[in-house]
Amino acid sequence: MTDIRALVWGENVHEQTNKVVADIYPEGMHTQIAKLLTAERGITAKTVTLQQPDHGLTEKVLAETDVLLWWGHAAHGDVEDEIVERVVERVWQGMGFIALHSAHFAKPFKRLMGTPCSLKWREAGERERFWQVNPRHPIAAGLPDHFELENEEMYGEAFAVPEPLETVFISWFQGGEVFRSGMTWRRGAGNVFYFRPGHETYPTYHQPVIGQVLRNAVRWANNEQADIADPKNAPNVPVEEALEPIEERGPKLHGHGEEGFK
Amino acid sequence: MTDIRALVWGENVHEQTNKVVADIYPEGMHTQIAKLLTAERGITAKTVTLQQPDHGLTEKVLAETDVLLWWGHAAHGDVEDEIVERVVERVWQGMGFIALHSAHFAKPFKRLMGTPCSLKWREAGERERFWQVNPRHPIAAGLPDHFELENEEMYGEAFAVPEPLETVFISWFQGGEVFRSGMTWRRGAGNVFYFRPGHETYPTYHQPVIGQVLRNAVRWANNEQADIADPKNAPNVPVEEALEPIEERGPKLHGHGEEGFK
Amino acid sequence: MTDIRALVWGENVHEQTNKVVADIYPEGMHTQIAKLLTAERGITAKTVTLQQPDHGLTEKVLAETDVLLWWGHAAHGDVEDEIVERVVERVWQGMGFIALHSAHFAKPFKRLMGTPCSLKWREAGERERFWQVNPRHPIAAGLPDHFELENEEMYGEAFAVPEPLETVFISWFQGGEVFRSGMTWRRGAGNVFYFRPGHETYPTYHQPVIGQVLRNAVRWANNEQADIADPKNAPNVPVEEALEPIEERGPKLHGHGEEGFK
Amino acid sequence: MTDIRALVWGENVHEQTNKVVADIYPEGMHTQIAKLLTAERGITAKTVTLQQPDHGLTEKVLAETDVLLWWGHAAHGDVEDEIVERVVERVWQGMGFIALHSAHFAKPFKRLMGTPCSLKWREAGERERFWQVNPRHPIAAGLPDHFELENEEMYGEAFAVPEPLETVFISWFQGGEVFRSGMTWRRGAGNVFYFRPGHETYPTYHQPVIGQVLRNAVRWANNEQADIADPKNAPNVPVEEALEPIEERGPKLHGHGEEGFK
Repeated sequence: MTDIRALVWGENVHEQTNKVVADIYPEGMHTQIAKLLTAERGITAKTVTLQQPDHGLTEKVLAETDVLLWWGHAAHGDVEDEIVERVVERVWQGMGFIALHSAHFAKPFKRLMGTPCSLKWREAGERERFWQVNPRHPIAAGLPDHFELENEEMYGEAFAVPEPLETVFISWFQGGEVFRSGMTWRRGAGNVFYFRPGHETYPTYHQPVIGQVLRNAVRWANNEQADIADPKNAPNVPVEEALEPIEERGPKLHGHGEEGFK
Repeated sequence: MTDIRALVWGENVHEQTNKVVADIYPEGMHTQIAKLLTAERGITAKTVTLQQPDHGLTEKVLAETDVLLWWGHAAHGDVEDEIVERVVERVWQGMGFIALHSAHFAKPFKRLMGTPCSLKWREAGERERFWQVNPRHPIAAGLPDHFELENEEMYGEAFAVPEPLETVFISWFQGGEVFRSGMTWRRGAGNVFYFRPGHETYPTYHQPVIGQVLRNAVRWANNEQADIADPKNAPNVPVEEALEPIEERGPKLHGHGEEGFK
Repeated sequence: MTDIRALVWGENVHEQTNKVVADIYPEGMHTQIAKLLTAERGITAKTVTLQQPDHGLTEKVLAETDVLLWWGHAAHGDVEDEIVERVVERVWQGMGFIALHSAHFAKPFKRLMGTPCSLKWREAGERERFWQVNPRHPIAAGLPDHFELENEEMYGEAFAVPEPLETVFISWFQGGEVFRSGMTWRRGAGNVFYFRPGHETYPTYHQPVIGQVLRNAVRWANNEQADIADPKNAPNVPVEEALEPIEERGPKLHGHGEEGFK
Repeated sequence: MTDIRALVWGENVHEQTNKVVADIYPEGMHTQIAKLLTAERGITAKTVTLQQPDHGLTEKVLAETDVLLWWGHAAHGDVEDEIVERVVERVWQGMGFIALHSAHFAKPFKRLMGTPCSLKWREAGERERFWQVNPRHPIAAGLPDHFELENEEMYGEAFAVPEPLETVFISWFQGGEVFRSGMTWRRGAGNVFYFRPGHETYPTYHQPVIGQVLRNAVRWANNEQADIADPKNAPNVPVEEALEPIEERGPKLHGHGEEGFK
């Protein structure tokens, strides 16, 4: 079995502008996330950032990516719409997509969900406790029935996303809120996972348990099958190629071999 | 109980340019769809078209709409992105949305799904038979276990939409294909339904059974509760207003009362 | 519109044997639940108990019930399997079913779920806070974004039920757990809702907000359409009645008009 | 990676009593299904039949099974309820379960679904065409967008099962019906798949494409994680072990260390 090719997209803004964040993640959050992914065999991880040409997400780079992880917060608006569409179409082809923490408002995640993805929040360094609600889901492999982060930002329901395929984790917060902190969806051939924790002023991506979840999620999101080459294509099936013999009847809009409207 | 306020959006292109379509729908498809909706008590229906200012979809018009039905085909690309966003946000607030036939590729439907919404198609006037797969679903109220349209365009799987909340109808086609022809989703507070038939060169919207489905769908999609005023809002919950007493700990990005990033 | 006919099934054991419970619910929990249901127009409510012949659930009584609410705890094992099957088949026909609190282990609920329905629990009178995760769901109509019960038994995840159609509420517990406290499913033509609170030693069914949820749930669970007369029936479609002309081919197991195996 | 241990349960009645079936499956249908599973590396397959003690499904045999495939038709009623419960509990622990064709009415499948699992049927040797509705689902790996069986029994909707996690295949039938012929569910830690074809008077289990689907399904259904030891257990969490410090308040039903009701 060949390695899964993960790519970590980092916004890389607060690491450059905020001393607290820079001290926790001196090489950038994306680099630390990539280290978590490669802490066990079977996953290779590269990183790209907002500041690169095409935000690092060229056609070639995406074509060589099995699972994309996305961390962004301060600069969602700086991500070019053309690149967002490129990412979304790559997901439809079969690339996995994992949205991390404040990426609930990242453009590609919002595009894939079709909902506002809004929530409540509070930055108080409070305790977050994750509960498994779906034991033996692949993303929960090897995890205890609950685990904690002593300091995290709070995200509270209602989280405005579509009903998921499956809910994997729900978080309890010290200040009194709850949040569905791990959920799965499929979009085209692409598996999508949202994982809540990861505020930049806390050392969340230095926690081994978070690494375990992320590696599980990459393995789950990886679609081993061949890509859908052109997921937007709506092919015409000519009458003479119908699987059951039929005769054309009634008036038509389209001439033979004509493309459909888009 | 007050009437449900339906609005039928018609592209109104082929009715003006194609004699076959004009003969079947001399007042426009949208007008005939509206007549189906008002054939029983409880629903009022207005119509607007692509050609009107704002495509007829001003803030005021949308605010007074409970359920929007959308028929488009040739001119999906002519719908302004700003109006699309306005429609989508109104759905999130609570307006129902019913996509008809070729509106599988309409911009608002694609935005709400987050998928390419592609499919196979053939224009041969073949027989389509609808089967109930979810008996006693509200959208199937009063319908037989199957019904037919003698002449319809074929749409074939795979239909690239997210797994629905519920599948209501599946179609059998004479030429050998199948299609999930009635499916439901929720997006924010808005109920969304896709209903497959309605090719403009056939008298589909003159069939009583189609009227029954559409009226059922409008009743189902109508959300009787108050709108979500601002579905995109992500409010901060100040530490001092936390429901359980907590103390602020650790470093912060945001000053007191500061807005989050978007 | 005629009233919805609710029926509250009460185990009625602890009300007779435990002074605390008897003091809170001197007429029985079932009576108090019925009072909540009829506090607004549109619902009539009867009560039956375990101790009656057929546990009060005769064919006639069930045939006249639109939505059945079930509260049981100490005596799940005393419910006759024959009555359980009768209830389950009535749900398949179209009767709504609402399982309350410890009815997570009630026989009809376990039968409808097909899972163990197990959970964690603690009886400490701690605070429970309910969060809406699905704003404008009919079961959340008129409710604030969260509400509290100051004293409740804790139920903790993982709650071993199938992934629901929709999650409506998630509970936060003072002692550190979370629970999906309101979930919906469909079983045949019957709508099923589980609602978590209702421990017998606390005055939960005296809280107006609980009454609001229960009335909403009854309205949501009520299926206005005609019953499925015989949901277990698997009818043969004779070749000569096929909707498309086909000829019988190949060997057969069943003679003409013969019943299928069951 | 170690092999997945599949077990094929065969009713083995018609193979002994019906010459047509015996000629197609001289070693029994279960044996032929097992051959399909082991046609590629990675799966080992054993067989057991109804006629063996415990129908071949002892605690030991089930404990050594990763995925159970079930084919039954004429003798559903002969399967002992005690064995059914044993199978169902093993699924909850994590064993995969694949119900084949007429096993829609098999006791373990009905128990796992919680619905009547009824459908329409016709035995006419007509053509069945399977369409992928979920491209790149693991169960569709390596398959064309559609495939056919020239002679099969017809099963028609409405198929009375719960809304699935995902629909993988939908069948078109020559006589005019449709059927959701591949669907997935999770029950506890167990993955469940229903696959429609397999009537005993046709050589369905001699078709390579059916083998491909079954091997895919076994791989998908196999849960690589450790079993849930006791899925029916509902553990008490003592107050003094609460994760957040709480004090016991209010009256209690249960003494310290007492078991809950079941």
